[in-house]
Amino acid sequence: MGIKVGLLGLGTVGAGTAAILLSPLGRHPLLAEVKLAWVGVRSLTKPRQVNLPPEILTTDLVQIVRSPEVDIVIEVLGGIEPARSLVLEAIAHGKHIITANKALIARHGDEIYTAANHAGVYVMLEAAVAGGIPIIQPLKQTLGVNRIHTITGIINGTTNYILTRMREEGGDFGDILAEAQKLGYAEADPTADVDGLDAADKISILASLGFGGRIKLEDVYCEGIRSITKTDIAYAEQLGFVIKLLAIASRDKAHPDQFPPRLSVRVHPTLIPQDHPLASINGVYNAVSVVGEPLGQVVFEGPGAGAGATASSVVADLLQVLAVLKIQVAWSQAGVPDTGLGSKISLLHPLLSCAHQEYCEISTMEELETRFYTRFITSDQPGVIGKLGTIFGNHQVSIESIVQKDIHDKDTREAAAEIVVVTHNVAEGNFRAAIEEIRQLPTVQSISSMIRVLEQ
Amino acid sequence: MGIKVGLLGLGTVGAGTAAILLSPLGRHPLLAEVKLAWVGVRSLTKPRQVNLPPEILTTDLVQIVRSPEVDIVIEVLGGIEPARSLVLEAIAHGKHIITANKALIARHGDEIYTAANHAGVYVMLEAAVAGGIPIIQPLKQTLGVNRIHTITGIINGTTNYILTRMREEGGDFGDILAEAQKLGYAEADPTADVDGLDAADKISILASLGFGGRIKLEDVYCEGIRSITKTDIAYAEQLGFVIKLLAIASRDKAHPDQFPPRLSVRVHPTLIPQDHPLASINGVYNAVSVVGEPLGQVVFEGPGAGAGATASSVVADLLQVLAVLKIQVAWSQAGVPDTGLGSKISLLHPLLSCAHQEYCEISTMEELETRFYTRFITSDQPGVIGKLGTIFGNHQVSIESIVQKDIHDKDTREAAAEIVVVTHNVAEGNFRAAIEEIRQLPTVQSISSMIRVLEQ
Repeated sequence: MGIKVGLLGLGTVGAGTAAILLSPLGRHPLLAEVKLAWVGVRSLTKPRQVNLPPEILTTDLVQIVRSPEVDIVIEVLGGIEPARSLVLEAIAHGKHIITANKALIARHGDEIYTAANHAGVYVMLEAAVAGGIPIIQPLKQTLGVNRIHTITGIINGTTNYILTRMREEGGDFGDILAEAQKLGYAEADPTADVDGLDAADKISILASLGFGGRIKLEDVYCEGIRSITKTDIAYAEQLGFVIKLLAIASRDKAHPDQFPPRLSVRVHPTLIPQDHPLASINGVYNAVSVVGEPLGQVVFEGPGAGAGATASSVVADLLQVLAVLKIQVAWSQAGVPDTGLGSKISLLHPLLSCAHQEYCEISTMEELETRFYTRFITSDQPGVIGKLGTIFGNHQVSIESIVQKDIHDKDTREAAAEIVVVTHNVAEGNFRAAIEEIRQLPTVQSISSMIRVLEQ
Repeated sequence: MGIKVGLLGLGTVGAGTAAILLSPLGRHPLLAEVKLAWVGVRSLTKPRQVNLPPEILTTDLVQIVRSPEVDIVIEVLGGIEPARSLVLEAIAHGKHIITANKALIARHGDEIYTAANHAGVYVMLEAAVAGGIPIIQPLKQTLGVNRIHTITGIINGTTNYILTRMREEGGDFGDILAEAQKLGYAEADPTADVDGLDAADKISILASLGFGGRIKLEDVYCEGIRSITKTDIAYAEQLGFVIKLLAIASRDKAHPDQFPPRLSVRVHPTLIPQDHPLASINGVYNAVSVVGEPLGQVVFEGPGAGAGATASSVVADLLQVLAVLKIQVAWSQAGVPDTGLGSKISLLHPLLSCAHQEYCEISTMEELETRFYTRFITSDQPGVIGKLGTIFGNHQVSIESIVQKDIHDKDTREAAAEIVVVTHNVAEGNFRAAIEEIRQLPTVQSISSMIRVLEQ
């Protein structure tokens, strides 16, 4: 049938995508019907990993998104501009969009989907979250028959790599980050990864698909891994936990019947039990757990990045769109009249298009019910634990375990005590109020860390 | 739009399916458009877990599959007959089919898909393999852009439960099977599960979808877990492995360009490294690993059985078919003429329909390249290991590790030696030839076990 594709970008993912399209043998037979019509690049002379006919390369990306010869535009440029403008221009010209750009969708998904629904085109984004793991399609199509309760993911490979090495080697965050940068697992500016911003983009996309409402990115709580120390990792280990940077979206249990549901959406380091399915996801691997009713829990794991894995998801989206276009062509040959642009929206495949209009209400972190791990340094005096326990009790914070270890203050060399507390589920607001009161105790020298523990 | 569903069977899965359809709130909005028109049961008076209007219950299942009021038939009866006849009759009457019946599809898929393609209807089977895990849809739709190399699954919950308890408790197969039967995790006649037949049904379905050709069930090698002993589980542990019943379908590397590909398809107990993603899948949980190019490895895990999990997959299939019917209705309202039954096949959604006509060629087990764990009891004489090593070497069997332990023969109480050998990848035929020669050695009292080790 000869569906024509315009590819914007020929970096790692773009080259991986072209490589699949250039060798369809042994893959889904529909891929043989795709023609790579145009590839937009910055430089025509740069050496490439894939062999493309030179006449399809162009530096004029605007021409690609306007070309009547192009049916589907694949955007793998990354970043906000010019990706946003090109995608909107492509939509205005009736092209279907496939993108791997989580930052673009998380920030401008609203504008893009509104334009796409008006134009009657698809915007597909399997590659935007968790690389090669097929998670977008199941959330949109298969798992959606469930009432989703929670989506929990390790969806940033860089931070998972750093935390895995810190655990395995007992190293410090700064040293391992530097190593990761040297090895190419972390960017020169690691902010988006280590401060959780990339994971926030991705969980806002997963939450939107899983819960059926749009998400404002600024509502997503975001805390990175810079403050995680090897001491906390060791204590966590001893208590039966592993520390992971989790991205979590969960239905607010206090408002079960709201639609779109009221959610808690957040990214933060989290202690998870060592036998939890996400505890064994190590290195740059990603995984996403989905809990729903009546399904229970399913977990998807796989490579979260890389040319091949991400390209696999890009082309999977292409296959979805191809299949629908193929039916449309078949129907059209059977005599269906062209109904014009305006009426196309009702003819979009309802599991591929995205019709959410309303925003999900997002709970504040103070309302969250979670558990906490916290570590104090106190002077080595009798009665300290009693005082901590009393203050926690006054704030309805119930303690699950408490460990005290004699240490020496690293500056004064005076005897001190290190106290590690793990709570049961508590309202985060109550916990913070208790911590503020504890901070005033003269015997408490410092509160070294406060890390959430996966709620029970 | 009012799509009408006829449900055949109201057992565990049927009741779970009805429960979802009766409470669409908070699920995918399309589900609100389904009407449960008829439910076929054996007894009208039996008390049920779901509240259904009594007038939609009937014991006349043939009437349901012929009814002009029914668009989609959900078959959750299990077993071959009357399921097969009812499904074929439903197809002949133009109904789309959703089934959870792996035995039916593995044995009669050929006949059923041929009829369905002729009639222009879908046959959907997400619930037939791995309960609530969405694995069928990814294999048909998302992962298919890859050249699939290997599909490896823990897809029988009963055997995984038994092996997990044997490992955790050091118990014997017979005792734990009896316990599992008492607890309802194993059937009174456990043959289909413990002898690997159920897993063979399921891997033949996964292989067919993943590799794009039909599979003859009788070509699937099948070995169960009856011969696994606590001694072997303990040795495996010591060597860094866990024993799991794996179902494996892999592309024959010696014939990389054949299409449909030449495959090895088999079910057998397997030693897998403790850090393999499938090693931590315990109890009744299922998991499926898919390795492809360029994707790498993805793993899906979740509940392999149960009312809610299986019903989730049944209704997920229903959602897929609904969505396509909805587009057809939209197009039809836009003026498409009815093209008649005969021409419908070309109008089926190409990712939902199944067009495989050819059979995959299946390699023999002798051709398989795999690793082996084997345990011998020999008399306690010098030179035994040397003789074993020589014979293995003569047959091109390269040894990775060898452990010898002094024991006493349990009958004669005479001193004996227990020797455990793990090989590198070898041709199974060569290994078996070596074993036959070793069996003739007068010093070898018995070959207690031979278990495959996941190949490198």
